[in-house]
Amino acid sequence: MGRHDLEYPKEAANTVKRLNDRGVYALETIHRIVNSCQILHVSFNTPSQPFPVILPMIGQMGSFDRPSADLGDPLDLYLHGYVSSRIMNLGRAGSEGEEAKGMPVCVAASHVDGLVLAISSFSHSYNYRSAVLFGHATLVTEEAEKMYAMELITNSVVPDRWRNTRLPPTSAELQSTGILRVRIASGSAKVRAGQAHDDKHDMDNEIVRDSVWTGVLPIHQTMSEPLASPYNRVDVPSHIADFAKDFNEDNKQQSLDAAKDQ
Amino acid sequence: MGRHDLEYPKEAANTVKRLNDRGVYALETIHRIVNSCQILHVSFNTPSQPFPVILPMIGQMGSFDRPSADLGDPLDLYLHGYVSSRIMNLGRAGSEGEEAKGMPVCVAASHVDGLVLAISSFSHSYNYRSAVLFGHATLVTEEAEKMYAMELITNSVVPDRWRNTRLPPTSAELQSTGILRVRIASGSAKVRAGQAHDDKHDMDNEIVRDSVWTGVLPIHQTMSEPLASPYNRVDVPSHIADFAKDFNEDNKQQSLDAAKDQ
Repeated sequence: MGRHDLEYPKEAANTVKRLNDRGVYALETIHRIVNSCQILHVSFNTPSQPFPVILPMIGQMGSFDRPSADLGDPLDLYLHGYVSSRIMNLGRAGSEGEEAKGMPVCVAASHVDGLVLAISSFSHSYNYRSAVLFGHATLVTEEAEKMYAMELITNSVVPDRWRNTRLPPTSAELQSTGILRVRIASGSAKVRAGQAHDDKHDMDNEIVRDSVWTGVLPIHQTMSEPLASPYNRVDVPSHIADFAKDFNEDNKQQSLDAAKDQ
Repeated sequence: MGRHDLEYPKEAANTVKRLNDRGVYALETIHRIVNSCQILHVSFNTPSQPFPVILPMIGQMGSFDRPSADLGDPLDLYLHGYVSSRIMNLGRAGSEGEEAKGMPVCVAASHVDGLVLAISSFSHSYNYRSAVLFGHATLVTEEAEKMYAMELITNSVVPDRWRNTRLPPTSAELQSTGILRVRIASGSAKVRAGQAHDDKHDMDNEIVRDSVWTGVLPIHQTMSEPLASPYNRVDVPSHIADFAKDFNEDNKQQSLDAAKDQ
């Protein structure tokens, strides 16, 4: 937990209205959901069309100014992409000029922990953890911050991977990779856990109670055995074997814990 | 496959620019990615703030006018939500007036099939299948279409679930549930499959070839044993047991197939 149990203030953009007892504003909860999500969905507007755009991206929250910051501290979101892509160009344009706060973006991170099956179709649900952040994205230009973000993001995919790859990066690699930094304006999370629930009139209906199965189908992400590339010459190292084991055990436990009646 | 191998036309909004050999415009591929995704991310703009909003939602593509349509045919996207939620109100406002095409939305569906580990951090990747649709959302008002969409969406979560629940829906249930129909304007998919690849200067470097593990960590979603609710009185029925078995086998095979060198 962060030292002060910080929360994002409830404003128009981030306040959970529907089933608002599921809403969470604690930075620690929101940042944990984001940092454990393998794909973030990033939305932004472009000048040329009426539709917002969503890109699936890889990212991670951290603090370049204070790398020892906790998950519960104010953090920036770093997003990884190709340097000449549309989102990087918009982020670059948003960084220019003294007044520029950056490009307004929304970032969503969602995990499914189970399918919740009830007597009525309308009482079906998911167990899930979802977070949304709003902020302003600018392109990272300082090389030290870019290196910090690349290491942060690489190690978020496989812990300790960065120092187990070929280092240092070449100048061509650094030049072709863009990093966006999102300064967070607000955020919220919505979490559903627990067993199935039905309305009273279904609970009192003996016929449906005796015929409809109710409960949770727990769902989690699993990693199969590592498949070496045709040019690999090395045994599976511990940073990968340990990660695969933890990944499978932790994810399974999370989905089973979520299914317990609250 | 659809009867004519239909594709969405390449326009400014949907054309894949970065690594464009990964871009796919076939309706059948795009619709299959969307319909197998448990959470869709839906983005739209609101009048009150500069940020687009992303909501995680449950949805499914289909055709009310021609329910026998294939995945490769032109289809609408149906999204499920609470009737008084912000997105439903915006969808309702977008439906009014003769000129109203509906609220512009972007919908993203993403699957991770594996982590691709290379010698260089910058050559790391995911095996993934992602799709994006652009379209206009309006609120479904006709009861028959609403029932069609509810059954379609319920059966997309667990096949054959609809007729294994308490039927018919009550009028209160129908009134409290909103369905948005998105008429698709364009779409595209991006797919990455295969083994790790590295640049020539890393392949020629004997030191890193002998020290860095390269390959794919296949990832898929798994369902654990069904956990009955405290008020359940029924054995796990075949529509659930069969689904859990197929879900686990099909997802695992997909992640292993994706890891094969292409």
